[in-house]
Amino acid sequence: MLAGLKFPGNIGLIARTMKNLGYRNLYLYNCNISKKAYIWASHAGDILKNARNVTDFSSFLNEFNLVAGTTGIVGKTPDRHMRMPVRTPEELREMISGRSGKLLVIFGREDYGLTNEELEKCDVIVSIPTSPEYPVMNVALSAGIILYVLGKHRQGDVPVAKHEEIDLLMNFFEDLLLKINYPSHKLPKTILMLRRIFGRAVLTEREIQTMYGVIRKIRKRLGDQNG
Amino acid sequence: MLAGLKFPGNIGLIARTMKNLGYRNLYLYNCNISKKAYIWASHAGDILKNARNVTDFSSFLNEFNLVAGTTGIVGKTPDRHMRMPVRTPEELREMISGRSGKLLVIFGREDYGLTNEELEKCDVIVSIPTSPEYPVMNVALSAGIILYVLGKHRQGDVPVAKHEEIDLLMNFFEDLLLKINYPSHKLPKTILMLRRIFGRAVLTEREIQTMYGVIRKIRKRLGDQNG
Repeated sequence: MLAGLKFPGNIGLIARTMKNLGYRNLYLYNCNISKKAYIWASHAGDILKNARNVTDFSSFLNEFNLVAGTTGIVGKTPDRHMRMPVRTPEELREMISGRSGKLLVIFGREDYGLTNEELEKCDVIVSIPTSPEYPVMNVALSAGIILYVLGKHRQGDVPVAKHEEIDLLMNFFEDLLLKINYPSHKLPKTILMLRRIFGRAVLTEREIQTMYGVIRKIRKRLGDQNG
Repeated sequence: MLAGLKFPGNIGLIARTMKNLGYRNLYLYNCNISKKAYIWASHAGDILKNARNVTDFSSFLNEFNLVAGTTGIVGKTPDRHMRMPVRTPEELREMISGRSGKLLVIFGREDYGLTNEELEKCDVIVSIPTSPEYPVMNVALSAGIILYVLGKHRQGDVPVAKHEEIDLLMNFFEDLLLKINYPSHKLPKTILMLRRIFGRAVLTEREIQTMYGVIRKIRKRLGDQNG
């Protein structure tokens, strides 16, 4: 999915590269397709033509099993769970190898990438290791490299939990943390950290059910009859 | 090296990606750098500014140890030694891993790539595996993917023979084949095949000296006192 891209050259190049590398489904969120994008897409106009416009970012993510946000800026300590830990494209490939499910990769605006709100909703953050001298890549180039690397993953049949289920699991965790009087100023960061941990672990459906069971049991012990 | 690229967007994007991935030396053969290329290069204007203009294609290649030509069109049987065998970027990376020397990668024109004459002079041909539905990638994207993959090679210190030495070895072979009355209509293809074999073998300096020794011995036995 492309979020807020402005330059038709980038949108067109990404469509072309998708077709070159055997990808079909392009999603656009706050992007306009101009005539110029079709020129850059060359023989991949069908990818642009069939691109689906996404209006509700959050609910769209629920159609997938794993959502990967991309960033050119790798987080330092302060807001570390937002852009940290960051996976290389090869690490993301290993995460999905041997699994089945739908992966969504999101590329952000040319100027400031994905917003923190968008990144927060992602299961995993991916970034291409670049030179400290000039770390920020053109979005079409980074999309091409990531799509190329991901294309080499090993097919598999272990079903991955849905993105939505991780969301629900996080709500479950949040309730639990509230119940145990977890310091409220730490709560959002801890939840984000848990999302990153479960995101990069690429939970299977069975694992997520087991997690629910564990939390339910804890809540029961804490005296919550709805748990 | 970029050969005959026309679109400033592609030249600029390649310069930017080079800097992102830690490459410095851009060579241009029959390319003009326009103001628009600088816009696409963004903060990599220094790469464009310091790019070296190549005038004599053949003699320039002699500054390197291994010359890789890129193609989007993979050869079929007829002229097989021109565009065959083709290596994937990963295979080229394995070839250079653990070796020392200078590698030149050449990217060709947007419309028809490298000419047969240019490809003939390359030690190895590289191509990105693409979808048969739309195999030809944008040159900046293919450059980005190849540079990314090659950047992950293992450093080494086994000195690789110079590109020029392979040329001389080929001349040596050609003389030998003429001497044994090898059918002249087969000669060019056989020499090209030998170039491809020795190219992909990434000969060390020691190996090439041994090869010279072998041919010299054969020529001596054939009664050539200059051998």
